[in-house]
Amino acid sequence: AVLELVNEIPEQDLSAILYELETEESVALLNILTTEKSAQVISELDTDIRLKILKHYSPEQIASFIQFIDSDDAVDLINELSVKTGEEVIAFIQNPEKADHIIDLLHYDEDCAGGLMAKELIKANLNWTIDRCIEEIRAQSKNVDKVFSVYVVDDNMRLLGLLSLKKLLLSDEHAIVADIYDPTIKSIESYRSGTEVADLMRKYDLETIPVVNVQGKLLGRITIDDVIDLITEQADLERQIMAGISNDTEEDDSVWLLSKSRLPWLIVGMIGGILGAQFIGLFENVIHQVTAMAFFIPLITATGGNVGIQSSSMIVQSLARDSTYIAMNPDRFIKGFVVSLINGIAISSLVFIFNLVLKQEMDLALTVSIALFCVVLVSSFMGTITPLILFRFGVNPALASGPFITTANDLLGLGIYFSVAHLLYSF
Amino acid sequence: AVLELVNEIPEQDLSAILYELETEESVALLNILTTEKSAQVISELDTDIRLKILKHYSPEQIASFIQFIDSDDAVDLINELSVKTGEEVIAFIQNPEKADHIIDLLHYDEDCAGGLMAKELIKANLNWTIDRCIEEIRAQSKNVDKVFSVYVVDDNMRLLGLLSLKKLLLSDEHAIVADIYDPTIKSIESYRSGTEVADLMRKYDLETIPVVNVQGKLLGRITIDDVIDLITEQADLERQIMAGISNDTEEDDSVWLLSKSRLPWLIVGMIGGILGAQFIGLFENVIHQVTAMAFFIPLITATGGNVGIQSSSMIVQSLARDSTYIAMNPDRFIKGFVVSLINGIAISSLVFIFNLVLKQEMDLALTVSIALFCVVLVSSFMGTITPLILFRFGVNPALASGPFITTANDLLGLGIYFSVAHLLYSF
Ligand SMILES: [Mg+2]
Ligand SMILES: [Mg+2]
Ligand SMILES: [Mg+2]
Ligand SMILES: [Mg+2]
Ligand SMILES: [Mg+2]
Ligand SMILES: [Mg+2]
Ligand SMILES: [Mg+2]
Ligand SMILES: [Mg+2]
Ligand SMILES: [Mg+2]
Ligand SMILES: [Mg+2]
Ligand SMILES: [Mg+2]
Ligand SMILES: [Mg+2]
Ligand SMILES: [Mg+2]
Repeated sequence: AVLELVNEIPEQDLSAILYELETEESVALLNILTTEKSAQVISELDTDIRLKILKHYSPEQIASFIQFIDSDDAVDLINELSVKTGEEVIAFIQNPEKADHIIDLLHYDEDCAGGLMAKELIKANLNWTIDRCIEEIRAQSKNVDKVFSVYVVDDNMRLLGLLSLKKLLLSDEHAIVADIYDPTIKSIESYRSGTEVADLMRKYDLETIPVVNVQGKLLGRITIDDVIDLITEQADLERQIMAGISNDTEEDDSVWLLSKSRLPWLIVGMIGGILGAQFIGLFENVIHQVTAMAFFIPLITATGGNVGIQSSSMIVQSLARDSTYIAMNPDRFIKGFVVSLINGIAISSLVFIFNLVLKQEMDLALTVSIALFCVVLVSSFMGTITPLILFRFGVNPALASGPFITTANDLLGLGIYFSVAHLLYSF
Repeated sequence: AVLELVNEIPEQDLSAILYELETEESVALLNILTTEKSAQVISELDTDIRLKILKHYSPEQIASFIQFIDSDDAVDLINELSVKTGEEVIAFIQNPEKADHIIDLLHYDEDCAGGLMAKELIKANLNWTIDRCIEEIRAQSKNVDKVFSVYVVDDNMRLLGLLSLKKLLLSDEHAIVADIYDPTIKSIESYRSGTEVADLMRKYDLETIPVVNVQGKLLGRITIDDVIDLITEQADLERQIMAGISNDTEEDDSVWLLSKSRLPWLIVGMIGGILGAQFIGLFENVIHQVTAMAFFIPLITATGGNVGIQSSSMIVQSLARDSTYIAMNPDRFIKGFVVSLINGIAISSLVFIFNLVLKQEMDLALTVSIALFCVVLVSSFMGTITPLILFRFGVNPALASGPFITTANDLLGLGIYFSVAHLLYSF
């Protein structure tokens, strides 16, 4: 009786419990569950903990779990195993259709539509009656979890449209699919990127989207839950890139992994700082004579950093909303220029007033404000162009808000500051 | 014939066209569409453009659009209007059920589950037959767009479970709902936050979630498309907060609005810079004698900034994944401390070696490395505690990566640097 109750706990909650247990305890818990429930729990786990647990199972046992896992998740699981184990597991899968599905899905890149789709879906031929459709759903419903609609195909398995379950339920049982199906359907080619899948499903409010090949043949379907996971992962990735954290780390990873994923970016910043020190060193004379020049170094670098991240974030946001947005639009640069002109004038005027009020020397006040104005313009331009260039070369544009660019902007700001000083003081 | 074709274009594509048109042109386009299609297009638009367009319609005409808009979107639209216009529009709504729905939804805060739900759903009494359920669906299906399942309620409208359309389709028509419905159902109370809704739907892979009141009475349902919009908006908001951009601006907003939403945060940074200048000014003597001290100012502030954003992003990520995560966990601080200890030692040793190689004076090399080590520890602590405090006070923790904290960290870094120098040089 207790066992029955445990088996009724949702797999999402059981898997959460496993994160708190030792591997041996996890395996013991899984072994008291039904195979189906164990399979669902295993399917929910993250790679690292799943690998540890699966070490305790033979390829044959893993194959018996896979029987209860949707093909998309099954492929993810097999891809985590060694090639040899993976092949053994596939060889042990009893259901030949499932094995075919998995072998088929192994060909797709993880990040494209083909890598997101599952083969489980219900399709109906154009010429079937409603009765036959319902029988088909009855036969297949064991294998397909979420049925909201039936995909309508022709004799060559080409996707023609869909028939919602609602329509099916309300139609006469002798009606023919061809007469009642909805031919306006959004589908996506298997080679499209995950981002394109997400954009399409978000725009048209879709719960599932069918995946087709270039000939329009129905290959599988993507469900919205997996797209939400993708969106969440991409948001996490963007945040990590902006913060200068490599590897996909979480707070509960080991101290060693956490240090390792942060150190490279701290070193980038450090090298920038050393170069900056060398560069300022070239102007040792200036600073020695006008010590107050040193006072404004943080103002210059901070403003450059702030303006740069403002501009790049705006571009990153535009690209995230519509990746087809024409990148090198001159209007975009003109607008960014005008905005930074306004803010540059505002900031440098304010600083100038401050410096007069605080009785700073006029020469220095002028130097600081002119340099600040140039820094705003240049950082804004850098912040605009960097994500666009990164994007064009297929690199995540969020990198343009990360430590690399921040460091470059600091150096650029120092360069501008001391160049302006050099010109004004004519040392 | 051309008109028919235009009416068949998805509302999402038509609304995209409207962004490119003048208001008068948009109104002209809407007027050649059917009222239903116009309503759908209007429902897709953003607030600013929608308000401009609705100025051209009378409250009566707006009420006729609302007839074709789901109650959740209808309320959003009415909330954008002036109170007077909104009340006039409601008075003109022909369908009394729709009007009731809207008046009911107006009570909920926009960001809570009640503000996300629509009243349109199909419910079935526990004692009905399948036949009766199907008749109910037939009667209501005009008003309800996405039907995947029927909510099962008792005589007091208390939510008991659900009946998927799949099950409905495969069951005998004389069966009773009570015998075949699924009593394991996830629901959410109307006062819960949008984030809680999103977390629950993401965790359990839900396409819709029913909303109940504290007595368990069924109030409405939330569909996943609106939750995806919420997730996207929150990601945008987080990015803007991190970048120091106030207002919900997009690249295509006016130059004036763009400048205005950036300037406040640039001024925050500027005031920090001026304060920094004043602070460094206190150590004018030190810099005058050891000019090289000035060289390392950017290294100190940049490292503090990088460490701070790394730590705070990790916390923001944890909070985004599970907002119930116990905030002030001592383990969290100990772990963060160890990580920053490792990285602090690494960075300051590297800088020390650099400075020896570059033949910097020993006193200064020591000052820089000790200060750098302290800066890493302090910034890491600040980056950890700030988002936790903000979160506890209901403020978006992403603010901890924004210009305000960056500025505070710069000042803190300078304070540490010159304090260490003061101690070591004993001026
Ligand atoms: Mg599942
Ligand atoms: Mg996959
Ligand atoms: Mg939408
Ligand atoms: Mg899936
Ligand atoms: Mg999944
Ligand atoms: Mg991990
Ligand atoms: Mg819609
Ligand atoms: Mg709303
Ligand atoms: Mg999920
Ligand atoms: Mg909605
Ligand atoms: Mg919506
Ligand atoms: Mg706007
Ligand atoms: Mg900085």
